[in-house]
Amino acid sequence: MTVLILTSEEDVTADLVVLRLNEAGVPVVRLDPADLTTRVALSGEYVQGICHGHLSVADRLVSMSGLRSVWVRRPGLPAARAAQPSAWLTEEASQALYGMLRCTDARWMNHPDAARRARHKPWQLRLAQRSGLPVPATLITTFPQAAREFSERFPDLVVKPVSGAHPQEPPRAVPTSRVAPDTDFAAVAFGPTLLQRRVPKLADIRLTAVGDRLFAARKTVEPDADPDDVDVRFSPSLSPWNPVEVPPRVATAVHAYLSGAELAYGAFDFAEDADGIWWFLECNQSGQFGFVEMDTGQPIADAIARWLASAPDGTPAPSGGTRRSAL
Amino acid sequence: MTVLILTSEEDVTADLVVLRLNEAGVPVVRLDPADLTTRVALSGEYVQGICHGHLSVADRLVSMSGLRSVWVRRPGLPAARAAQPSAWLTEEASQALYGMLRCTDARWMNHPDAARRARHKPWQLRLAQRSGLPVPATLITTFPQAAREFSERFPDLVVKPVSGAHPQEPPRAVPTSRVAPDTDFAAVAFGPTLLQRRVPKLADIRLTAVGDRLFAARKTVEPDADPDDVDVRFSPSLSPWNPVEVPPRVATAVHAYLSGAELAYGAFDFAEDADGIWWFLECNQSGQFGFVEMDTGQPIADAIARWLASAPDGTPAPSGGTRRSAL
Repeated sequence: MTVLILTSEEDVTADLVVLRLNEAGVPVVRLDPADLTTRVALSGEYVQGICHGHLSVADRLVSMSGLRSVWVRRPGLPAARAAQPSAWLTEEASQALYGMLRCTDARWMNHPDAARRARHKPWQLRLAQRSGLPVPATLITTFPQAAREFSERFPDLVVKPVSGAHPQEPPRAVPTSRVAPDTDFAAVAFGPTLLQRRVPKLADIRLTAVGDRLFAARKTVEPDADPDDVDVRFSPSLSPWNPVEVPPRVATAVHAYLSGAELAYGAFDFAEDADGIWWFLECNQSGQFGFVEMDTGQPIADAIARWLASAPDGTPAPSGGTRRSAL
Repeated sequence: MTVLILTSEEDVTADLVVLRLNEAGVPVVRLDPADLTTRVALSGEYVQGICHGHLSVADRLVSMSGLRSVWVRRPGLPAARAAQPSAWLTEEASQALYGMLRCTDARWMNHPDAARRARHKPWQLRLAQRSGLPVPATLITTFPQAAREFSERFPDLVVKPVSGAHPQEPPRAVPTSRVAPDTDFAAVAFGPTLLQRRVPKLADIRLTAVGDRLFAARKTVEPDADPDDVDVRFSPSLSPWNPVEVPPRVATAVHAYLSGAELAYGAFDFAEDADGIWWFLECNQSGQFGFVEMDTGQPIADAIARWLASAPDGTPAPSGGTRRSAL
């Protein structure tokens, strides 16, 4: 049974996971859907009620029924590197590849449907509430009057995009920033705006979930930090990420979130306040983990390799490899 | 409890359903997401574990918690008609609108996740096989050699796109056509190609499923029809669509398909052969039904209105309208 990794060639984080799977003797096929019709070929046959599918990568042939798991890491746009790329060819290649992979019994990290749903911020906030995670008061609105009333109730606000990254080429992350006290919010009418009570934070928390395993890391906010530096991704802080224990109530809520979202992987961002409460900010279903592993030494790549290698019921892979014990 | 219909203003088929809902006294809000930030506004608040959402259309305010059902008919691209449209604004508006609607308990026809998944042809074929529908032998491939071998086993083939419509502006349907006997299939290497055994058909069947209700219509192939006219959408036939009974085995299989696909609506295309077998060609989760209703008189719009108006458990709407009995 083979692990399929969909990602670009330059993805060095994926290299870490591939290395561990190789050490464990678990067969791995790594491909970039951008290479479809050049380095990558596919075929699926439906005859007399039976379906057979194959993938070929650099002349290596893999049966789709032999796929143990699929890791959707950083896949390129299907057929983007074809001799004559086009929107039509990308659509055809995407439907063929993902349509066939959807027919397999492989486990997904993460399934494309779950991944797509999990990107919706309003849905994230609601699921976090329902899962028992503390969510800072939030408003998403195109009504200037609603924004004004919200800012009266919660005078210290941050603003962030509803959707995450700006869809330019390459996509650019839009930072969260503080709302000035004299803002009049008239511009809210021109586009949905996400306003959130600013959590005065002592630390940022990044919790990486891999299946049932949780790895939390904490980055202290420096005492003289500028309160306008609300977005840890853009803050000039030099303090490292340190491993931190996950409070049991948070762990229970995070498991409920992942189960409700049908996600096998998630990178949660929290803000820790002076009372030690972890406030849910977001869960990125494809969040990076390399920087956390580098700072903390937490074995996240190893956990991903184990998850990908394990059987559908979660037991370790009955691999034929002699070095299986490495996992 | 309100029915929300997402579609364009020009959608006359939706008018039929709105008319029936109005007659039954069921509140309806119809909006085009393209009108977001101009005619349409939205707001969602997440405070202390509770979520409240509102939509406003032409100054009419609707609570999202009061939505009974959502009919995704022919919605425009979110914020496409904004004063300054952009890919970024569309993404923000789309995430805000669909993200909030995903938080409601409304029933969907069809849910966006189910709709997206249902467009994958390879997945359709597999689900049809699993549901017990006869599927003509099919190959989807980028291997010329696989195509050649397939054409030796099944010499009479048609070719059609994997993905359906060509993504130009406006999208254009690509007809299914016959494969010439001397085709060498070298070009298959440049893009996934769907080859399918041609079913020598006596009739085309369009089966429209609305919840549990099935409406089948049959269009006879004229005896002197050109066998190269394989695609009913492009055939010059003048024979009308006539109502036809659904064979019990087909009905069971179609219900299994809809349940597996989590679809509340589906338009199935079959080819009927000389033995009376209905061969599954595809299921379009947003297929048109107006032309069938016009020819056959089958009450499809009425069935959609009833489905949208019914409570989550399928019982008719406890509407306050005095003309409820009209449904």
